[in-house]
Amino acid sequence: MSDTINIALIGCGTVGGGVARVLLANADRVTQRAGRPIALRRVVVRDPSKARDALIPREIISTDIDAAIHDPNIHIVVELIGGTGLAKKVVLDALAAGKHVVTANKALLADAGAEVFEAARRADRTVCFEAAVAGGVPVIRALGESLAANQVTAIQAILNGTSNFILTSMTEHNMSYAAALAEAQRLGYAEADPTLDVDGSDAAHKLAILAQISFGVAAKPHEIARQGIDTIDAMDIRFANELGYTIKLLAEAWTSEETRTGDRGARNSGGIDTTLSGSGIHPAPAPRRAVEKAVALHVAPVLLRHTDLLAQVRGAYNAVLVYGDVVGETLYQGPGAGQMPTASSVVADLIDLGVGRAQRTFAAAKLWSREGRGFTVEPPERVRSRFYLRLQVADKPGVLADITRILADEEISISSLVQHEAQEDGASSPVPLVIVTHYAATGRFRRALERINKLGTIAAPAVFFSMGD
Amino acid sequence: MSDTINIALIGCGTVGGGVARVLLANADRVTQRAGRPIALRRVVVRDPSKARDALIPREIISTDIDAAIHDPNIHIVVELIGGTGLAKKVVLDALAAGKHVVTANKALLADAGAEVFEAARRADRTVCFEAAVAGGVPVIRALGESLAANQVTAIQAILNGTSNFILTSMTEHNMSYAAALAEAQRLGYAEADPTLDVDGSDAAHKLAILAQISFGVAAKPHEIARQGIDTIDAMDIRFANELGYTIKLLAEAWTSEETRTGDRGARNSGGIDTTLSGSGIHPAPAPRRAVEKAVALHVAPVLLRHTDLLAQVRGAYNAVLVYGDVVGETLYQGPGAGQMPTASSVVADLIDLGVGRAQRTFAAAKLWSREGRGFTVEPPERVRSRFYLRLQVADKPGVLADITRILADEEISISSLVQHEAQEDGASSPVPLVIVTHYAATGRFRRALERINKLGTIAAPAVFFSMGD
Repeated sequence: MSDTINIALIGCGTVGGGVARVLLANADRVTQRAGRPIALRRVVVRDPSKARDALIPREIISTDIDAAIHDPNIHIVVELIGGTGLAKKVVLDALAAGKHVVTANKALLADAGAEVFEAARRADRTVCFEAAVAGGVPVIRALGESLAANQVTAIQAILNGTSNFILTSMTEHNMSYAAALAEAQRLGYAEADPTLDVDGSDAAHKLAILAQISFGVAAKPHEIARQGIDTIDAMDIRFANELGYTIKLLAEAWTSEETRTGDRGARNSGGIDTTLSGSGIHPAPAPRRAVEKAVALHVAPVLLRHTDLLAQVRGAYNAVLVYGDVVGETLYQGPGAGQMPTASSVVADLIDLGVGRAQRTFAAAKLWSREGRGFTVEPPERVRSRFYLRLQVADKPGVLADITRILADEEISISSLVQHEAQEDGASSPVPLVIVTHYAATGRFRRALERINKLGTIAAPAVFFSMGD
Repeated sequence: MSDTINIALIGCGTVGGGVARVLLANADRVTQRAGRPIALRRVVVRDPSKARDALIPREIISTDIDAAIHDPNIHIVVELIGGTGLAKKVVLDALAAGKHVVTANKALLADAGAEVFEAARRADRTVCFEAAVAGGVPVIRALGESLAANQVTAIQAILNGTSNFILTSMTEHNMSYAAALAEAQRLGYAEADPTLDVDGSDAAHKLAILAQISFGVAAKPHEIARQGIDTIDAMDIRFANELGYTIKLLAEAWTSEETRTGDRGARNSGGIDTTLSGSGIHPAPAPRRAVEKAVALHVAPVLLRHTDLLAQVRGAYNAVLVYGDVVGETLYQGPGAGQMPTASSVVADLIDLGVGRAQRTFAAAKLWSREGRGFTVEPPERVRSRFYLRLQVADKPGVLADITRILADEEISISSLVQHEAQEDGASSPVPLVIVTHYAATGRFRRALERINKLGTIAAPAVFFSMGD
């Protein structure tokens, strides 16, 4: 690599424009941090006639991807097209042509990480992707480098800013789902077609990437159980609040069925004394609980206590709470998307390549390789959780007896129950009944649910969410 | 460096015991992450007869520092003695002997960073210190690597777990300062002599290190203005709560007098649109506000709104909120001290040396070198803030007129005011008067305070704190 590093930017939309801006407006800073100049040499776009940032010299803008990728002067290709079609070809071609690749493409890595990383290893080149998960929040470095002394035992993360924005609006302004979504679209926090954001798919892509780094598993996004926020009624937000909880869409990874059993103190410190004291030696810590070599992954709305760290993440922010068996819990929070936050992560990757750190990290991490960490993905059925269950029930005798009998059959006990008095003018119409259970295996809870939904006294399919503790 | 990396641990107290534990109990993991074995070859202690972790082979324990440092088989010396005396000699000797150094010693770096780093550059060796600030929270990597595309414009951080633990107890359990301190001591969160923790010195050491990384300034800890928590009365916690605020001991760095003017929205996004939308290009963002090349550093109790991210950090946790001019605000939170969290950071440094990342980072960052970033340290007088002011005043006519006149003379206007009715049996004794001001320069506020304290109607020196917004 020559002294100056030359960049080709493929795609110059929102994030690409931000990357160009940082490289061009802050060239001195980037040079100083990278130890050498990082020069934007080519910008490939679909429509060269569109107005662009005035800092981008017109003569470096073109529509010719191949010319950019095969330009022998280019050292790094930054792929910001998105998707798994053309973007995949760009990345594979760039690697084959001997270029390092920086990408923000979560779908590509989640779907074809093994293929991309194998191609990179074959070409002896590096792929960097800090921007692919949680935008400006440096969670890829945290998991891969900062927490390298740890085996991660659990991850709980808010990875979709759109969903979190909508849930925040519903919670803080008593809005319906439809109204909150419309507001998010008006403000640019949701696309015209918001499906991938609100149904949990986007978060599942990002969780697949975090799971690869933390557990070495290559879960396909479509294999990750997911439930979106589109089933949440304003009523559920109100009931949750009444019970002391906030609803958040979480992407979660749990490594053992014990992990969500309410014993947070022990989990948070890895079972090890984490006091600040003092001089002299500590008693030797007890051996850590063996980590089960299986991990359950899912995306779902979860009821969190108002005081939980993740309950307090508002608006379009992202946050990742990581449990490590040595450090305990650490939290990483910030803007999960947007032009400049994402550009911040892309340019950090370029600087890392300039410094030479990224190449070392890539070689050592062996991501999406055959050298796994021995973890398997298990379905979330075994994860134990408390559950929030809302039923629309006929207001007549015996209904509660039927429901509680079914729960008892699956050995699920009830922690609390809310049923408000029916309104006078609607005494005969169904009323909401909310049940909060004690800990139960997800599988048993779902079995109970199937039977409950078949009761003649149930007016609509049950709505249910996990509880964070 | 041979294939296996050999470590000498100098100091095997709380943290050292944790480091030994991780290296010995998780050797396979560490080898896999570092790409080569990291072997604990020597442990130097003061008293070899003390009971130690059974995993440490007796024959590697000695009292001979020099033999460990000069052992040609040793590649890395881990200094965990602490303090600026013997520890400094160990670090300088180790570097001169051609060893890399990993240290958790905040006092040494804050006091003698330039000398240590110059010695390291001379010897072409690397110094790593993730554990020196915020324990298990990887804030050194965040500032130095993950946020490398940014100029940091402000830092607000909870860096002393002892103080935060005491303030949390005072807030949540209505305890007096003395009772909360005693509780912290009983639980091992405070030393027998807690002075350096509760007077802000420890946080000032850590702030000096963060300021070097973010601004290239070499502020001596004793030059950093500091106010501890030992002046906080339970009454202030109550008044703050009544006003909607929580008191936290913050270490802060501000790069311009505009930064704390309540315009958080603009500050948090670097003045740049950070919406999630969409396809097509954004309008070119406006050039960012020029960052003043001066930074004010101080440690002080600050009133934060209950909803602020840092207001919600409880117990002995640390948290660092960083404002970057590209990314906006990101937060890093977790256990700020303790055996295993600190060991997590020390071992991450060892792994980084094994991978070869740390050497690249060290060379590129040029910390404590003559190549600064053009920032100067300015006294906090120019920082504009709102202030909380509590006075013990005689309950007689004209008192309020005198005080408000003095504030008006300094062009400080009053935002709110709380004076509760005097209790019947103490009508003639002084009563607390709480004033919250609008934004004012710290210098002018202090001038007003001097005059107020001289009023005959003031029964005790004024108590005051900054407000977070």
